[in-house]
Amino acid sequence: MDTNLMTATVNKYIQALNEHDMSIIEDIFDKDAAIEDPAGSEPKAGITAIKEMYAYAFKMNVTAEMTGPVRCAGNRAAFAFFIVLDREEGKMKLEPIDLFEFNDEGKVRSMKAYWGPENCSML
Amino acid sequence: MDTNLMTATVNKYIQALNEHDMSIIEDIFDKDAAIEDPAGSEPKAGITAIKEMYAYAFKMNVTAEMTGPVRCAGNRAAFAFFIVLDREEGKMKLEPIDLFEFNDEGKVRSMKAYWGPENCSML
Repeated sequence: MDTNLMTATVNKYIQALNEHDMSIIEDIFDKDAAIEDPAGSEPKAGITAIKEMYAYAFKMNVTAEMTGPVRCAGNRAAFAFFIVLDREEGKMKLEPIDLFEFNDEGKVRSMKAYWGPENCSML
Repeated sequence: MDTNLMTATVNKYIQALNEHDMSIIEDIFDKDAAIEDPAGSEPKAGITAIKEMYAYAFKMNVTAEMTGPVRCAGNRAAFAFFIVLDREEGKMKLEPIDLFEFNDEGKVRSMKAYWGPENCSML
């Protein structure tokens, strides 16, 4: 898998989170993609469920920022970043490491988000 | 899996890299563990092959530093860091994201290191 394409996809993903742009989400994920957020939880399967998840984050006025370079290996890309969400109780920061796996068409077929309660803090 | 144990194991791993301490490597990995470094490459399976890999890094006077918090989810821990290696041509920096998967005994049964040529630079 082309490293430039994978890195560009990660950057588009961060852009989608910041601009609340669902068209980017639809573009980068395969329609049958599965997301585990957090990793190990019941997967959200299919673009409809995935869009619902991001719609929820957009409602919380999500912003996102990378905290290091994208790491590409084979057909996968790992990246560390943080998001900030407006919740009823205040602004919450969450620091995941996401792992994208790409299919042969260059779309994300699986995403696993590694984070736990220790990676959440109120600002 | 206990988050404190997983986080402590990651910190011990970074300590092992900095102190060139093979006893820590032997302690944290299951004897039948498999390492893909980089992820997707032929796994190094078993503690003997794993120790050979780290002996090679120790010879290159490896040092290591975390660049963010450990992210724990289920029985896995992801973490971003960098290492510096003394190579014939000079000091090389390498920035991976590693993913540890733990067995029920709290030992690392698989490690996958996500990085590519874009994450290597000469200092």
